[in-house]
Amino acid sequence: MTTILPIAVDAMGGDRAPGEVVAGARQAADELGVPVVLVGDPGVIGDAAGLEVFPASEVIGMHDDPGAGVRRKKDSSLVRAAEAVRDGRASAMVSAGNTGATMGSALLRMGRLPGVSRPAIATPIPVPGSTPTVLLDAGANADCKPEWLVQFAQMGAVFATERYGLEKPRVGLLSIGEEETKGNALVKETHALLAAGVPGVEFVGNVEGRDILTDDIDVVVTDGFTGNVTLKTLEGAMKFMRDAVFGAMVSTDEAVKASEVLLPILLPLAEEMDPDSHGGAALLGVDGVCIISHGSSSAKAIVNAVRVARDMVEQRLAERLAEAVAPA
Amino acid sequence: MTTILPIAVDAMGGDRAPGEVVAGARQAADELGVPVVLVGDPGVIGDAAGLEVFPASEVIGMHDDPGAGVRRKKDSSLVRAAEAVRDGRASAMVSAGNTGATMGSALLRMGRLPGVSRPAIATPIPVPGSTPTVLLDAGANADCKPEWLVQFAQMGAVFATERYGLEKPRVGLLSIGEEETKGNALVKETHALLAAGVPGVEFVGNVEGRDILTDDIDVVVTDGFTGNVTLKTLEGAMKFMRDAVFGAMVSTDEAVKASEVLLPILLPLAEEMDPDSHGGAALLGVDGVCIISHGSSSAKAIVNAVRVARDMVEQRLAERLAEAVAPA
Repeated sequence: MTTILPIAVDAMGGDRAPGEVVAGARQAADELGVPVVLVGDPGVIGDAAGLEVFPASEVIGMHDDPGAGVRRKKDSSLVRAAEAVRDGRASAMVSAGNTGATMGSALLRMGRLPGVSRPAIATPIPVPGSTPTVLLDAGANADCKPEWLVQFAQMGAVFATERYGLEKPRVGLLSIGEEETKGNALVKETHALLAAGVPGVEFVGNVEGRDILTDDIDVVVTDGFTGNVTLKTLEGAMKFMRDAVFGAMVSTDEAVKASEVLLPILLPLAEEMDPDSHGGAALLGVDGVCIISHGSSSAKAIVNAVRVARDMVEQRLAERLAEAVAPA
Repeated sequence: MTTILPIAVDAMGGDRAPGEVVAGARQAADELGVPVVLVGDPGVIGDAAGLEVFPASEVIGMHDDPGAGVRRKKDSSLVRAAEAVRDGRASAMVSAGNTGATMGSALLRMGRLPGVSRPAIATPIPVPGSTPTVLLDAGANADCKPEWLVQFAQMGAVFATERYGLEKPRVGLLSIGEEETKGNALVKETHALLAAGVPGVEFVGNVEGRDILTDDIDVVVTDGFTGNVTLKTLEGAMKFMRDAVFGAMVSTDEAVKASEVLLPILLPLAEEMDPDSHGGAALLGVDGVCIISHGSSSAKAIVNAVRVARDMVEQRLAERLAEAVAPA
């Protein structure tokens, strides 16, 4: 086991903070063999479960304006967590808090990796029976330039290789048809750049929304607006279907009985699709490791986020990303 | 029953043409009390099931370039169908063929309604227990201007009112957060225009992908790129879940037996979510009625598409749309 600096967990971030977050951080420290520190207000955290606390008196709330929050709340848990990474007191930060403010803190305090135009959020989307599909940008940059998307392709490929052991991850560009003539102006320009050949990117052409949940593709590149809409559309559809199916199962006494047979088959699938089982999204392109866990993260989600953070630190992912985007 | 001009069905369009299309057209004529004509090559159609055929010797294939197809194949079924509407020999056109070429034919031959900047594809997305959510633009315009989206909002509201009897359909703008500061440049500018007040539009602000399958919203406005990606993402997620659930049901003998109880509960839901049960998408903003059915349309899908076409003709929807976008 490599000895690494502690992973800084934002104890104030997320709908279930600090309780679930502290519990998850403690569990991660116990199970993953990695030091974990909490960042936040010791008075609010209360029982830190024996973990060290890096004090921070302020909180950027879930609905606070991210830009203003990061600028004004210099003693917030998010800003302090990012500073801990910058200053070499932590190897990574993990937060289930305000996504925009997490990005902003990481970007402002850690800075960008050399050569990276814009960091992007890489979200692994579980695909049962296959490795997850990595979608990026999942929301960091609402308006993008073609050159940024090319870098997202490079960073996404590195991420898929390191995290899922894929030697040559297949990278697709999210569009509205397979043909290179399909898409908006951004996609058509990006397609031309990727098709011309980009080091480290196995470009397989345009893909569509229906390809994401298949094993036909490993990395899906898109702008942060489309990526975020896509992600939330997927979440909505999954929730709808899950509610419909489990609703049917309890709709009559007979159905409840019949479900006793089907639940053991369907529950592992639901578990595999559960975002808590994965480890949140990674902000790729900042000079450090930053994991963004979803707002309703449970202790389990925090454990998995810390696990991903640890892996990324051990794999020296930031270095790999910088190498990937460096001009040949 | 109003006497209307015949509805022109593109007999050559779709993966299952002409067989299923002709069968659906015949069934529609029998069941809906509306005259139906086929458009296509009589030699290929073969048995026209007693329906009149407007002859057209060419076909724009599913994978042909739409622009080139419409320009070069002047005797194609799609171009001839659109001309029949323009010339007053048909009241509406229905096609399950090449979507881009269907749009192109309608736009070039019927022309735009006065005042409409760009026609948009309005796709009703089934929401069990509620009226469908109308998503537009679902793919006609990959790059949009804010003013076009404002017109999409107006046209979508008219469509939802006429089709689903909603007095004041709630119109949302698809974005990546509810706050007006969230979104890309297009969405932020559009939000400002809609929030300032637009006649006929009950604007409820930004909505997210996860809101589409709920009864919280009636019309979702977006550019044609995002709309098409969203639609196909929804389709992919639904297919994935359907396959997973029905796969679980046949995975063991015990499961098959248990499913006998659950299937009667789940099948009506699957039926309600089935695009064949609805009636395709409508191209709003052209000077006539044009229904775009999905490529794999069955006879049932064609019947429902003709039904929607008939309703739109009887409701004089094109006139209503022109009124809606006319300057106050």
